[in-house]
Parts: sequence; C-alpha cells; structure tokens
Amino acid sequence: MPVFLNTQAADFDADFTALLSAKREDSPDVDEVVAGIIHDVRTRGDAAVIELTAKFDRLELTPDTLRFSEGEIAALVAQVSDAERAALELAAERIRAYHAKQLPEDMLWEEETGAQLGWRWTPVSAAGLYVPGGLASYPSSVLMNAIPAKVAGVERLAIVVPTPDGVANPLVLLAAQLAGVDEIYRIGGAQAVAALAYGTESIPPVDKITGPGNAFVAAAKRRVFGKVGIDMIAGPSEILVIADQHANPDWIALDLLSQAEHDESAQSILITDSQAMADAVVAAVEKHLETLERRAIAGASWQDYGAVVLVEDLDQAAALSNRVAPEHLELCVEDPDALAAKITHAGAIFLGGWTPEAIGDYIGGPNHVLPTARSARFSSGLSVMDFVKRTTLAKMTPAALQAIGPAAETLAISESLEAHGLSVRARLDALNE
Amino acid sequence: MPVFLNTQAADFDADFTALLSAKREDSPDVDEVVAGIIHDVRTRGDAAVIELTAKFDRLELTPDTLRFSEGEIAALVAQVSDAERAALELAAERIRAYHAKQLPEDMLWEEETGAQLGWRWTPVSAAGLYVPGGLASYPSSVLMNAIPAKVAGVERLAIVVPTPDGVANPLVLLAAQLAGVDEIYRIGGAQAVAALAYGTESIPPVDKITGPGNAFVAAAKRRVFGKVGIDMIAGPSEILVIADQHANPDWIALDLLSQAEHDESAQSILITDSQAMADAVVAAVEKHLETLERRAIAGASWQDYGAVVLVEDLDQAAALSNRVAPEHLELCVEDPDALAAKITHAGAIFLGGWTPEAIGDYIGGPNHVLPTARSARFSSGLSVMDFVKRTTLAKMTPAALQAIGPAAETLAISESLEAHGLSVRARLDALNE
Repeated sequence: MPVFLNTQAADFDADFTALLSAKREDSPDVDEVVAGIIHDVRTRGDAAVIELTAKFDRLELTPDTLRFSEGEIAALVAQVSDAERAALELAAERIRAYHAKQLPEDMLWEEETGAQLGWRWTPVSAAGLYVPGGLASYPSSVLMNAIPAKVAGVERLAIVVPTPDGVANPLVLLAAQLAGVDEIYRIGGAQAVAALAYGTESIPPVDKITGPGNAFVAAAKRRVFGKVGIDMIAGPSEILVIADQHANPDWIALDLLSQAEHDESAQSILITDSQAMADAVVAAVEKHLETLERRAIAGASWQDYGAVVLVEDLDQAAALSNRVAPEHLELCVEDPDALAAKITHAGAIFLGGWTPEAIGDYIGGPNHVLPTARSARFSSGLSVMDFVKRTTLAKMTPAALQAIGPAAETLAISESLEAHGLSVRARLDALNE
Repeated sequence: MPVFLNTQAADFDADFTALLSAKREDSPDVDEVVAGIIHDVRTRGDAAVIELTAKFDRLELTPDTLRFSEGEIAALVAQVSDAERAALELAAERIRAYHAKQLPEDMLWEEETGAQLGWRWTPVSAAGLYVPGGLASYPSSVLMNAIPAKVAGVERLAIVVPTPDGVANPLVLLAAQLAGVDEIYRIGGAQAVAALAYGTESIPPVDKITGPGNAFVAAAKRRVFGKVGIDMIAGPSEILVIADQHANPDWIALDLLSQAEHDESAQSILITDSQAMADAVVAAVEKHLETLERRAIAGASWQDYGAVVLVEDLDQAAALSNRVAPEHLELCVEDPDALAAKITHAGAIFLGGWTPEAIGDYIGGPNHVLPTARSARFSSGLSVMDFVKRTTLAKMTPAALQAIGPAAETLAISESLEAHGLSVRARLDALNE
C-alpha cells in the first residue's frame, strides 16, 4: 500500500517533508571505472571503443562497422509495420511543429547615442544523442532528443545506441531517420560518450551530448561536461495527479501506473480533496496491478514510493504540488486552467481528464525529456534552446563612449584593473584631442 | 614573446590546433576536501559554517552575525565615493535595461481539434550568488549576476561573500543593494556553497547558485549540482581581436592586456591580415607592459598564452575565430557588421574600434559572465534565462484524443509500456461507447 497523508493530521508537515526527501535511487559509484574508460578512449580511440564493445555488448566491430551503413539502416527500417511507421510519423510531425515555435529571436536595438546592443542565436554545430539499448531503447526518446536539435539547425547530429549481441531496434533506426539524424553508431556505455566528446579516428567529436542512460552513461556525461555541453542528468521520474470529485478514478489509476511501470524507483502521487476519490483510485490501482504486464515493477514503485494526500481544497493541493515540483503534473479537475495558474514549479502540466500523461510521452508535441527529482524548481525540459547559444552584441559610437566610458573607467580603477581603464581612456583621449 | 602563426606556413594547422588545446589551468584536486566540508555543513549546519569561517577567514561569527545587518550595510555603503556610486548606478541601470529585453514570452495556441498546446515561464523562487572575497571581489560581477535574477522575478536572492579578517568591500555591498539583493552572508568557500544548497538553521536553502569562485567553490558547485541548479563552471578567460590595417594598434594592445591582466592563464589572441598591424600591436603591448601595474600577471599571460596570427583575408580570420569560439571577440575592422555575420561561435562580440571589451565588462549592458575555454560552441553567457524555467502545457479535447490517441497507444505497445497504452485506450473507449 502507498503512504496516506492528510493535511489535517498533526504530523502532516513532517510526513510530507519525509516524502519529498525520500532517496529513491542509489547510484552505484562507477566514477573510477568510467574515468578509466574515458582515458582509454582518449588515448587509443577506435581500438579502445572496439575492445570495450566486444567486452560489454559481445559484439565484434571494426572501424568500418562502428557506424550503421545506409543499407543496414534501410533493411532494419523495412521491418517496421505500417501502423508503427504511421504512428511515428505523426509523432515526429507534431513534435516538430511544437518545437519550431521555440526558435528564439535575434534582437538588435539602437540607443540615442547611436550605440547598438542586442544578441544573436546560432545553433550548436554538432550534437550527439545517447540512446539506451535493450529494453529501454525507446524510439520516442529518439524523436524527443533529435527533433529539437534539427529544428535548432544542428548541422551534424550523431546517435550512439548499443546493440548487445548485435540486436538493433528497427523502430529506433526509423525514428532516427524521421528526425533527420546524420550518423548512427552501434556503441554504448561510457565508451560511446567518450567517443562523442573527444572523437576517435572514425567518430568525429561533437559539441553537445544529450540523452538518457544508465549510471555509467550518467557518470561519463558528468565527466565530459565542460569539454562538451550536456543536458540534465535524469533521475527517477514522477507523476503527480491533482483530482477533484469529478475525475474518473480508473483513468487516474492508469495514469499513476503509467509512471510506476517505468521503474521501481518512479513515484506516483495523488492529491485530492475527496476521500471517496482517493479510495476509488487506490482500489482501481490495485485492480489493474493484478493483470498489468509490468506489475512487478509498477507494484514495487506504488508500494514503496506511491502516495495519496488528502487536502482541504485545491489551493492546498497547488501549494503542495509546488513543493514537490513534479516532472509530470496532471490536473484532473473541473477547472484545470484556474488551477494551472497557481502552479509555479512543474516540468509539464496536463490539463483536464482528456489529457493522459502518455499523450505527452509520445505525441502531444511538447518534449518528454523533463526535469526530475524536484529539479523543476530550477530547470526546464529539453527544447530547441538546448541546441542554440546566444552571442551578445555591442557596438559603441564616439558619442556612446563619451556618455558611458568615464563610468567604465571609474569602475575599472576601483577594481584595480588598470589596463581595462586605459583601454577606455585611450579612446576618450582621442575624442577629446 | 607570444606565439606567431602564419596561415601560409606549412605546419600552421598543427600549430593552431596546439594553441587551441593548450591546457591553461591546472585545477588542484580538492574534491575530497570539498566533499568533507559539504557533509559537515549538511550534518552540523551553522556550527560547521562558523567553525570553517574561523579557520579559513580568521573571523569569529555567531548564528546572529552570519548575515550582514542593515545597519552594517548602510555604514559600509556610506564609504563609497560619489563618483563610484554614480558609475555603479549607471551600470546597474544599463544592465537592467538590457536584461529586461530577455524576458521570454509565454505561448498558448489551439489546434483544429480544440487541443491547446504551449508553455509558460516562471522564475526560480530563491537564488544564491557566490561573490569571491579579497582582490577578486568585483562589484561589477555582483551586478552581472544579481540583476538578471531580479529581472527574472526571483523572490529571494542571497549573496555569500567571504570577508577574510572581517574586511568587506563597500562597493560589493553597494552593488548588492542597487541590484535588490535580499540577504548578504559573510561566508565563503565550499562551506558557503553547501549552506546555500542545503540550508542551515540561519540560512534558508536556495534553488540555484551562480557566480565565480576558486577551485574549492567550483568543486562544491559541481557537487551540489542536481540538488540545486548551477551556472557554468568558469575557466580561464580569453579575448580574440580581429584587426585589419585600419585599426588603432595602441587601443588593441590595451584591449589584449585588459584580458591578460586578469590572470596568468588568461589568453589574448590577435588575428590580422596586416603584418604591419601585427608588428605595431606587439610593440605597443611591450611598451605598456613596462609600466602596467599588473605587468607581472599580464606579462606572464601574454608570454605563455598570447598569440598573433597572420591571415590572408578576413574570411580566414572568421573561420579561425570560430574554431577558437572565444569568450570575447573584438572586430576592429572597417566593416564589423559584415564580419560579425560570419561568426558562428563567440560569447560576446564587440563591433568596431569604439567598443573596447572593458565596456562590456562594466557598463555596456550585456552580461560579462560568458562561456570560457571554447564552451561558446555550446553555451551562452549568463542571462535572465538562467533564472526562469519553462513548464510545457497540453490540454486535449475528446476530438483531439480521437485524432492522435490511437497513435500514442500504438507507440506505447511497441515500447512494451502497457499502462501507457491503457491510459489512452480507456478514454478512447469511453468516447466510443
């Protein structure tokens, strides 16, 4: 059974704080192993990547077969059913349309002195996307990572995806193709991250690496950060559903379980102002847990980290949700827009009963790579912004320099940075000659 | 003498690559020490912070004196001269005006099915800013970090600034006041970062930490990343000046030196298509190095990392600059706008001879916290965007779910995520009843 909390209970605040700070994931400390792998790839390049792939993925490669050929991709993609292809195509189209609206605008303006100020956005030149292999090899994640990069204008987009025992997921390759990915390498783990960051004889380096992965991949991304940009390090994910008495308890139960089935350390929380709704949802979850394919995982998650919180009103629900800062927030209430206006921290909001979180995972359009583990307090989901960067622009005129140069000189002197001051003074003197 | 390179030399490419990959900074490995300090602050709170401050800053504090009182701030700020105050006020006003234009816009649109999609921006609730103590305690950095946070709408903005032996910099306090900072603590080092990230009895935790610091501060920021957001970890900074024959060599020399005087590991590079200009700039640098107050630092930087590159034309200059991806780029050429259009990677561009880089450090308006060590390939300078986060919005209608729900179900099934599929199917079934 999940935890039951009631805001009217005396020890509610302590219990809710405990719920928030429960550590849901123990990452094994693989940092030393990963440091060795990165060093190996940096010094020995292809040879190291090939050896490590043989060791971890039981796959013998050569420099020529590190990368999928066009023929191999075509043969694999041909295995995808028409229904799956149509679904992926619709998803790609909708994700592209949503992200196209995120392209930021350049700005340039002129001040009275004729000085011009502004900024300009440019895409990252080359990006690499890590795609997990095996069971968690999700074509939807390929779309969600690759499409924003291509919309941003990334010229060279490479994917690394391990293929243990040589088994590749045709849907992943099709998703890459639909997203416009330029290169696909059949490698994984810390060695793939190192190859993307530092390059090898056969794999040119990239400037930014995104995408989910296991503890080795996460540790490798942390280590190469600085040499290249990385996206967030994802933790176990969570859903929070706020429901009033009008919601459909069976739908909510499935939404909670669709989070729980991801991972034993996922967290599903229901906040409601209706005791009857709380009871009905819990009963529906129990019922579905009897038959669900992934009931072992979902059941463990619900048992260990699930929570049902009874509140006095929806304002209280919003305040508690803001303390959680959930990755996914569903508002299954009569007036979801009014409630959404009170939400200050959440990765994604799904408004109303007709918007199951699964729509956002696949096809709604918004990105499904979202801030986990309360990091929606300070970060955003993946977007086009992750693949562009801003260059600020400043162009002074003699009049502008005469207006603001003396103040810059004063500040430079007070910071004991003489050359800074002189660089302004030399120009001011030229104007006053 | 700095390195001289000529694109027409046979070994140019190898030499230029060596210049790019020169390691300019050896960070001491303080990670273990920092881990201990963070653990200490997490477990013992104020007591740990007070002990560490006594040890490192030779300053005895109590929980009541960790924070500057309003009276103390007023007394210190009163020491600032009128000229310095006026200069800081003008800088604050201009930085605020520039950053106000960065506030991103919310979007919400409706599809044919009535489905609504979009996103909303909200500020980080609480942010902490690290300000180094001692010589590198720069009031300009306070403005550059604090103003974007306040423009973004951060409600609670705290500063930590060590005051070794109890000595505080009045200009730093005035800058904090002008920027609207809410709390100022006289603590520093890894212990201050830990206090901001985890909170103590007297210091409430924040959600995001920005600002420069030494190796201990950088290691602490890396460690608390995830618990809170952080800005980039700054490396040694650099300037690249592209000059044609029309530039003023004395001004360029001072601009190169204003980077070199920061730090022995700073890098100043001149790229020019004029041998005469190269010679004149080098001579002017030598001349200024005879008298400059910080000639020891600036001279070492110029000697060890300075470079002059002779190119055939400005297109070649732009291409080389893009490989460097410099933090600061000055275009001292006849048509700086035309050249700027060819720049794809740079933190900030200063256009034309009237725009010394120092203007950007203090008063131009753009932020002076910029991506160093070639990271302009994938990241941007500090901005309002660092203190806001995006929540994506999706609201389906029955018609929308009927249009796109089946594809989501197909993808869920192909990813073996049954509950995801069922959460969509249950709603579709209700519509088809």
